[in-house]
Amino acid sequence: MASSTVSFIIIIIIITTVLLPSLSSQLSDLFPSNNPPPFLGKHSHPIKQPNHHQQYRYETRYFSQPLDHFSFLDLPRFRQRYLINTEHWVGPSRSGPIFLYCGNEGDIEWFAVNTGFVWDIAPRFGAMILFPEHRYYGDSMPFGSKEEAYRNATTLSYLTAEQALADFAVLITDLKKNLSAEGCPVVLFGGSYGGMLAAWMRLKYPHVAVGALASSAPILQFEDIVPPETFYNIVSNSFKRESSSCFDTIKNSWNALRSEGQKEDGLKQLSKTFHLCRELTSVQGLSDWLDSAYSYLAMVNYPYPSNFLMPLPGRPIREVCKRIDGSPAGSSILERIFNGVSVYYNYTGEVDCFQLDDDPHGMDGWNWQACTEMVMPMSSDQNTSMFPAYDWDYSAFREGCQRDFQVTPRPRWITTEFGGHDIEHVLKSFGSNIIFSNGLLDPWSGGSVLKNISETIIALITKEEDPDWLVEQRATEIKLIQGWIYNYSKKMKATFEI
Amino acid sequence: MASSTVSFIIIIIIITTVLLPSLSSQLSDLFPSNNPPPFLGKHSHPIKQPNHHQQYRYETRYFSQPLDHFSFLDLPRFRQRYLINTEHWVGPSRSGPIFLYCGNEGDIEWFAVNTGFVWDIAPRFGAMILFPEHRYYGDSMPFGSKEEAYRNATTLSYLTAEQALADFAVLITDLKKNLSAEGCPVVLFGGSYGGMLAAWMRLKYPHVAVGALASSAPILQFEDIVPPETFYNIVSNSFKRESSSCFDTIKNSWNALRSEGQKEDGLKQLSKTFHLCRELTSVQGLSDWLDSAYSYLAMVNYPYPSNFLMPLPGRPIREVCKRIDGSPAGSSILERIFNGVSVYYNYTGEVDCFQLDDDPHGMDGWNWQACTEMVMPMSSDQNTSMFPAYDWDYSAFREGCQRDFQVTPRPRWITTEFGGHDIEHVLKSFGSNIIFSNGLLDPWSGGSVLKNISETIIALITKEEDPDWLVEQRATEIKLIQGWIYNYSKKMKATFEI
Repeated sequence: MASSTVSFIIIIIIITTVLLPSLSSQLSDLFPSNNPPPFLGKHSHPIKQPNHHQQYRYETRYFSQPLDHFSFLDLPRFRQRYLINTEHWVGPSRSGPIFLYCGNEGDIEWFAVNTGFVWDIAPRFGAMILFPEHRYYGDSMPFGSKEEAYRNATTLSYLTAEQALADFAVLITDLKKNLSAEGCPVVLFGGSYGGMLAAWMRLKYPHVAVGALASSAPILQFEDIVPPETFYNIVSNSFKRESSSCFDTIKNSWNALRSEGQKEDGLKQLSKTFHLCRELTSVQGLSDWLDSAYSYLAMVNYPYPSNFLMPLPGRPIREVCKRIDGSPAGSSILERIFNGVSVYYNYTGEVDCFQLDDDPHGMDGWNWQACTEMVMPMSSDQNTSMFPAYDWDYSAFREGCQRDFQVTPRPRWITTEFGGHDIEHVLKSFGSNIIFSNGLLDPWSGGSVLKNISETIIALITKEEDPDWLVEQRATEIKLIQGWIYNYSKKMKATFEI
Repeated sequence: MASSTVSFIIIIIIITTVLLPSLSSQLSDLFPSNNPPPFLGKHSHPIKQPNHHQQYRYETRYFSQPLDHFSFLDLPRFRQRYLINTEHWVGPSRSGPIFLYCGNEGDIEWFAVNTGFVWDIAPRFGAMILFPEHRYYGDSMPFGSKEEAYRNATTLSYLTAEQALADFAVLITDLKKNLSAEGCPVVLFGGSYGGMLAAWMRLKYPHVAVGALASSAPILQFEDIVPPETFYNIVSNSFKRESSSCFDTIKNSWNALRSEGQKEDGLKQLSKTFHLCRELTSVQGLSDWLDSAYSYLAMVNYPYPSNFLMPLPGRPIREVCKRIDGSPAGSSILERIFNGVSVYYNYTGEVDCFQLDDDPHGMDGWNWQACTEMVMPMSSDQNTSMFPAYDWDYSAFREGCQRDFQVTPRPRWITTEFGGHDIEHVLKSFGSNIIFSNGLLDPWSGGSVLKNISETIIALITKEEDPDWLVEQRATEIKLIQGWIYNYSKKMKATFEI
């Protein structure tokens, strides 16, 4: 049980980690940059030894996809990569299920080896495992290379969630046909953005999949469906819960940072305080770096040590606050902050100096998506958030997108296409077989579905502190998925008998 | 009652008439043309006096739409026309319903004035009436004009059903927001291709509309879901039912036509026999002309006189067969055929000579759609069909599309996007509130949903011969729509109370 618990921890962690807004880059007052919130990306690099783990054996294949499913422009097709494992699949004759993980905004191999749950349960279901990669990420580049695909707004224009869903639908339909496996039920998996894709796919392509396990999927984080302060309030509460002085120190640090940065030699001094390898050219990069640490820490604040994004102790926020609060008397605010975030960036103590993200404004896939359709308003409340106060400013956001990508966002498109304000209403009368799985301390949980909507649209809420939650939640999920597959077979039989 | 019965007749007629394949243009043996089957088009010309009928008062408005909803290419927007009537609408405070007719492949004014049912029932529902036009038809032309929009495959590439559905969704979402009418239930209407759109819209955008009345919507007429012979078998049976000798004469006429056409002066002779204004250059045009007459006759073969496509007597097929069978002794097969089709083309006797369609291969919107995604296989069985035997030949069809439009069809896309073989299964577990309304003698009924799928997915089958069917079917439809709206209000109230 121990090893499978670990791999379930890993899936829970990955699914709570993929999206990451950087608030400080929106702080138009303190920090005038307005680029769209950078989400994951940097954590989803290709892995060196994809098949290092016995249970993660897969074959890599490619499938030719239309670049635009919704027009008939004469465009070059592209090769979508997908990973496939059929060793446990019981095949079409026994209606062997197909587990399809909806690839997120990154290299699919990284998601595959970090999604233990799917690998663990596939054998007992006799299931095929499929990990199709999301277009424009990893090795699934239109126009032949990342350089070409990311050249400009024209080449990037087909990087949308709808196109990605259509990719999955076309791939699985073709694959099933070729394998005479039309009668095999498909179950969708996905976390974070991939969890949103899984839920949306179940809504939009109910004929393609019998159910979806959507983990940490903030499908309500659009327009004004949930308050824009939600994300940073949850992060902040995770710190406040450990120590209110820790919360206060972080809250006060932004002004200290700004004052220091404005001094003569201030940037030099900041670079020294934070042990940066290269001297800062503005406080922006440093502020982003701190913001990322706090947000990621809130996502992986588990009671046991983990090694997913960074090597971390159990309850890492407690450890951060211990260091902030327990710094030697006379330490400055910024020295305390440095001591704290070192838990995240240097828990093993091996780092001599820190390298900030060199290209925060680069042509990043998620930034493009955030600047086109995935517009998730983010604010920071001046009372309840430890981050600098910030009111979501769509105009400034739009201008940033026009400047960085020469594209104008469509902030209301996602709710038009997938439903929004009345989504629970719609799910109730029209949806079925979706599990919304959430960790309550996960900052993204505020934008997800947190209550049962019907008998078959289930919200699983877990308190990450409970040592048994992993085992229990996993057992529930398996039972629900078994129910979907059982009902599907029953209906198929009934159809044949008619 | 009389006048409203008439307008209901009209909606039934229109919804069974919009799609029309022309088999003879696929007869690669006898008739080597392989252009995609020409559907309506010619019947949906702009009308001269849109507001001639008191109950069809509407305002014409325009809405700026993105040309491609599913990419962020920097394309020019286009003006979508829509007709709106709010005089009976009880408004947002009383949750007044919105009746949205999904515009088909033609000028929306033509559909509006020929859809009496919507106009008739709107007042009793306190409903707003909306007729949005389908992109690339009527006055809703991308690139500023029909000439530009239909210039080539690139400009036409955004003429797809998915884009049209997104147009409807964006328009209604914006309109409701502007009117603070988010709580007003939308009911979809549509016939033929528009009926397919209504059903698909209910499936893909359940958050946008509470239900759909989809009349004569052949959503199963794709791939091999229904036998490709279905359409022409139903047409043929309508003739055989009246007279088997009539059926035989028509069946034999194609060979007679071919033989005549091959003779010296044969085309001249044919032109004379059929009273054509201009001399034929091939038998193809004449064959298309006959084919159209038979298919349209089967669609409007009502027991009472009608004046929808052409002025026709009641039971027009009986009349056609009377003339074919009852032609003077010694009449040739082709003379009999001419006497027969004159019922369709010249019932009033006012036509001196007949003008065939001058441009059967022209850049027609429906032909483009048939050559891209709306690929509906059509065969003609050599035993059961009175049309020349023809086996659906996808390769030949594709080549025709490549030649005529420089585009390659995606014959499996529609079933991937909207479901296909297991659509009933999917509708049962995932859909609700759709009425599939069919006339049993309608040639398109074979590709529609003909049995109840669940408590809320209802198939209404009508025997057009029954004099009471209009009244009864209409009453049932009204009752079902009332139920949708009632349930919606109930749920909305329940949601507010939580």
